[in-house]
Amino acid sequence: MKVVKTVKEVREIVAGWRKEGLTVGLVPTMGFLHEGHQSLIRKSASQNDRTVVSVFVNPIQFGPNEDLEAYPRDLNRDMQKVEEAGGNLIFNPEPAEMYPGHFTSFIDTTETTELLCGAVRPVHFRGVCTVVGKLFNIVCPDRAYFGQKDAQQLATVKRFVRDLNFPVEIVPCPIVREDDGLAKSSRNTYLNADERQAALILSKSLKLGKQAIEAGERDAQKVIDIIRKNLETEPMARIDYVEVVDFENIQRTASIQGEVLVAIAVYIGKTRLIDNFIVNI
Amino acid sequence: MKVVKTVKEVREIVAGWRKEGLTVGLVPTMGFLHEGHQSLIRKSASQNDRTVVSVFVNPIQFGPNEDLEAYPRDLNRDMQKVEEAGGNLIFNPEPAEMYPGHFTSFIDTTETTELLCGAVRPVHFRGVCTVVGKLFNIVCPDRAYFGQKDAQQLATVKRFVRDLNFPVEIVPCPIVREDDGLAKSSRNTYLNADERQAALILSKSLKLGKQAIEAGERDAQKVIDIIRKNLETEPMARIDYVEVVDFENIQRTASIQGEVLVAIAVYIGKTRLIDNFIVNI
Repeated sequence: MKVVKTVKEVREIVAGWRKEGLTVGLVPTMGFLHEGHQSLIRKSASQNDRTVVSVFVNPIQFGPNEDLEAYPRDLNRDMQKVEEAGGNLIFNPEPAEMYPGHFTSFIDTTETTELLCGAVRPVHFRGVCTVVGKLFNIVCPDRAYFGQKDAQQLATVKRFVRDLNFPVEIVPCPIVREDDGLAKSSRNTYLNADERQAALILSKSLKLGKQAIEAGERDAQKVIDIIRKNLETEPMARIDYVEVVDFENIQRTASIQGEVLVAIAVYIGKTRLIDNFIVNI
Repeated sequence: MKVVKTVKEVREIVAGWRKEGLTVGLVPTMGFLHEGHQSLIRKSASQNDRTVVSVFVNPIQFGPNEDLEAYPRDLNRDMQKVEEAGGNLIFNPEPAEMYPGHFTSFIDTTETTELLCGAVRPVHFRGVCTVVGKLFNIVCPDRAYFGQKDAQQLATVKRFVRDLNFPVEIVPCPIVREDDGLAKSSRNTYLNADERQAALILSKSLKLGKQAIEAGERDAQKVIDIIRKNLETEPMARIDYVEVVDFENIQRTASIQGEVLVAIAVYIGKTRLIDNFIVNI
């Protein structure tokens, strides 16, 4: 698996592909790849002639008290995972390659970033939009792949791509889960054995909310209450948020109609986990 | 001269050119074109196979008390001017085409926008960066042309293009002046006969500053004083700013060395005019 470190190198390789008339997919990641990422790479490989996977722990999307330093990294493992899933190139820049001196420009979007993770991680989505916009300009892909696991990120990327006319198609991909229901996440590696067991409360509680909607419940607050009540049965869980929002704008909705995102963030010990489902009614 | 109104149309035309292997230049303008704009179009036509001129009075770069409504518009005249100068296509979107409902994403850059016009026009450069970034994504030009007349805008566009890796070369073009020295500007049309005469004080005062530097003056404050003192001899002139900054970062410099921008903004009656020169020592 070829790994390049500089903007110049990735551009030269993609320009060569373009000359051959090949299409290009991009899967932006922070590395420590799991089957969730691999599902994005596989999707890209099925829709494009070539797939670039960026592996970059983006410092500007971490707040001052977040886990930038602790975030797990293993490039050799990532190379294997990309190979397995059918990717063609890893772009793995150093922070100084992405953020040279006097770096002072940002892409930001407001509406979709106000609630959920945006409310508690104030610089997070500015960092996400900026690095994703940079990657679009570096790779110039036809399509880019984002997991529904980070549903607010997906809605936010879709918004800034539309607003700023980036010539790239955003392809959403479903959440990949462990056999017992836990959503795959690089941060799951932080969990000890007890926490790993306790973390099941997220997917289990969401399932109860989804069942209520499927049984006809349309009152968002009642769905929230069902989920919160179940989350509270787990002594190791501390709720950050339980929200019901319209998926396009990420604004609260009182009744469940249209495309609705039910999203939760829960601390298990010191590890903050997120999970969600989307319904379309 | 072909004029298109939608993103879709301009993309289709440019895609056709690309298929033929042609290079594309972009000249972003707010219309009411004069010889300054035409010099950009000519430069683009000399360096690219095809030149797109955008004509769009961009609402989001005007503050609430600025001249958005009054800003002069004349598309038929602009079509002639583009034709004369060798442009191939005008992109003239309606505001709703550029800013649809729930438009909430912006490109912003801090350092180069703090002083000069950025200090008195707080949303101006966010609006400029956003519309220019959109135009880059819509047209995907090889090169884009900006006049040194708007020197802070030029430095700001260069900065965000570098920071966000937009794959476009920024080509700066010198100021074009009337025979008597007044820098060409669409806003000159606001001046009555007396104001038009009084407006000469801008270029005359800058000339004195430039002569002082050429004679060996390296103290920025002394150059500022020479320019201010001369501007104050014109009763119809009201100084907004006189500044000496390094051109790359648009930060104040005490001594004149390297690439230095000497920039002024002066009200003549109700009309705010800007002018500048750059030295490289």
